[in-house]
Amino acid sequence: MPSSFAAHPAETFPAGTPAASQVFTTVLSQGPLTRLELARRAGLSAAAVTKAVRPLIESGYLVEDVDTEARTALGRPANLVRVDGGRALFLGLKLTGDAIFGVLTDLRCRILLARRVPLTDRAAKAVLASTAEVVRELLTEADGYGVRVMGLGIAVSGDVDRGEGVVRYSPFLEWRDVPLAELASVVTGLPVTVDNDVRALTVAEQWFGAGVGLSNFAVVTVGAGVGCGLVVHGRVVAGAHGVAGEIGHVTVDPNGPLCHCGNRGCVEAIAADPAILTRIRELSGVEVTDTTEAVDLARRGDAHARDAYSRAGEAIGRGIATVANLLGPERVVISGEGLAAYDLFAEQIRSAFAAAAFGSAAQCDLQTRPLPFEEWARGAAATAIQSFITEPN
Amino acid sequence: MPSSFAAHPAETFPAGTPAASQVFTTVLSQGPLTRLELARRAGLSAAAVTKAVRPLIESGYLVEDVDTEARTALGRPANLVRVDGGRALFLGLKLTGDAIFGVLTDLRCRILLARRVPLTDRAAKAVLASTAEVVRELLTEADGYGVRVMGLGIAVSGDVDRGEGVVRYSPFLEWRDVPLAELASVVTGLPVTVDNDVRALTVAEQWFGAGVGLSNFAVVTVGAGVGCGLVVHGRVVAGAHGVAGEIGHVTVDPNGPLCHCGNRGCVEAIAADPAILTRIRELSGVEVTDTTEAVDLARRGDAHARDAYSRAGEAIGRGIATVANLLGPERVVISGEGLAAYDLFAEQIRSAFAAAAFGSAAQCDLQTRPLPFEEWARGAAATAIQSFITEPN
Repeated sequence: MPSSFAAHPAETFPAGTPAASQVFTTVLSQGPLTRLELARRAGLSAAAVTKAVRPLIESGYLVEDVDTEARTALGRPANLVRVDGGRALFLGLKLTGDAIFGVLTDLRCRILLARRVPLTDRAAKAVLASTAEVVRELLTEADGYGVRVMGLGIAVSGDVDRGEGVVRYSPFLEWRDVPLAELASVVTGLPVTVDNDVRALTVAEQWFGAGVGLSNFAVVTVGAGVGCGLVVHGRVVAGAHGVAGEIGHVTVDPNGPLCHCGNRGCVEAIAADPAILTRIRELSGVEVTDTTEAVDLARRGDAHARDAYSRAGEAIGRGIATVANLLGPERVVISGEGLAAYDLFAEQIRSAFAAAAFGSAAQCDLQTRPLPFEEWARGAAATAIQSFITEPN
Repeated sequence: MPSSFAAHPAETFPAGTPAASQVFTTVLSQGPLTRLELARRAGLSAAAVTKAVRPLIESGYLVEDVDTEARTALGRPANLVRVDGGRALFLGLKLTGDAIFGVLTDLRCRILLARRVPLTDRAAKAVLASTAEVVRELLTEADGYGVRVMGLGIAVSGDVDRGEGVVRYSPFLEWRDVPLAELASVVTGLPVTVDNDVRALTVAEQWFGAGVGLSNFAVVTVGAGVGCGLVVHGRVVAGAHGVAGEIGHVTVDPNGPLCHCGNRGCVEAIAADPAILTRIRELSGVEVTDTTEAVDLARRGDAHARDAYSRAGEAIGRGIATVANLLGPERVVISGEGLAAYDLFAEQIRSAFAAAAFGSAAQCDLQTRPLPFEEWARGAAATAIQSFITEPN
């Protein structure tokens, strides 16, 4: 059974040198580029670019087009080098306690199709069976493109060791030390990359989103929890012991509500969806059961619901200021399902951030990005693309 | 006058390639090493090490000794490569509002002598005149070693742009946008590196102290202020806008004492020396005027003084936990003049850290290191050594 339904045998990415890998990554995230501009951005000589580009063009990963707009200094048309997104396909899965979200993407991480499969059993064996099912279905669809699927990324919230491919601890799945990369590789026949979900989303922003070209930025996700992915010196921070980016456990108020971590007044205990619902119930007595109801109540002007969102915004703004004061990122991208309520706390996020940011840390650019749920799965696909390019077998 | 009293003309460090610079840095911070071990730690081939080592030995920066203890796999004595610390000298200065502290160090950043000159005038011109005087004196002493002084490092608290050599803002000196590197180079004739004082101390720990061999660690300084230097992915974090490591402005208690930054309950507003003194005065009515008196009072068992230190320890522990939760460092080194009172708050630091650290972030190794004041100047010398090796002119 292992690898029986893998669509195609493995093919190695032709980037033998760090320079080639860097050239490709630069074109992938910043292209199309002229060779001159590519050399400048990659910090390489024209000769080094020529050497790196040749095998990538020969194997079809890069293409060079004549651009009728651009001109060289001599007035001749300048060719533009770009990635052929259709040259390879990837799969990304996000595992939650309730469902598996899956996407098929091209090499440029554009979603071609998305699937959702409900999970009824969280045991690793059952989740693997469902994973195999989603992958099989996506691979069948991928066949229609006539292009190989080169890797699978899986994103899970919690403590994930990407290097070892192990889910150390996932509270939602109630898993401990599950060697997910190896298990999933056996049942799917694909090279598998496993990462923490927020870090995976951060990779997608770094390579294909609001973090392109930045060496220091953060992604803050708001929703069922409050998470943070950090890029410092051009690389995603993983933490020496598996924990990093825990903005949800920055203390906002030591006398605030109890957090599941045992402390009081953490950002997550005030600003995560369940905390907001709890506060609305406590203050107003209205038994709101989900965020849609809570948002409706607040938009209809209910003072208690508005107060709960206002406090959440303030907590998020303070948490972001803490990140900015410690790391001085160029940009913070605020995202997550919680952004559906963004109008209810945007002002509080910005004002709390401005008040708590120290000195020039306040110059940090705050951006928001909506996050449809398949984006989490796309983040997983981004990690698979990253592994394919930077860790060729 | 420019360069008139520079001891010697400039000499370039013979590390033309990144590999050579990396080999030298590895031996400098981790040596003596066998060539085999050096290749392993630097991630280079034996041939690359041989190529990198040759010019460094020829120019006297590295020496190779027969070690009678170590043996190769064939049973022959293994040679050890080490840095000749006496091959070059460096100066480090720390500027405060009251004084200039200066040290002369060897290439391994060992302090050969230290000087202190009081400052009566904080204007840049006056500080530069005093700087020239300290440097002249240290250079005269250096002459006795018969070895060249290759660079000068200057550390200043506040917002410092090392790349540009500019002190953007220094609250203690009341400076804004002073191009200190250029000015100091003109009056001393030496290549000058200017950096933030806590970052300079962090460089010293990274290259010569508790951070050797670690790619992720933090230095937290406690005293007149509370600062933090961060090393992530092997490099000191500078912040995109000049601010980073501001652990002093992590909020501990939004209803706590007012901080000079305008917020309430920052770590610095509770745990810096002036905050501790203020709290003791408020609680006990005793007019303590400096930390020596405050520490004495607490050690004699005064409940109010003990309470002030206890709260300070709790604030520091929470601040460190915030750093650990966001970055997951392998180690945090706690240092600074405030460590003189360490017995009064060590327990609170550790217990507050343990309570607020999230999951495996609590595995972070907390270490303490005493910090004699000349260590700040030594940090400055470390930045000069770093510039000499990694940015040869």
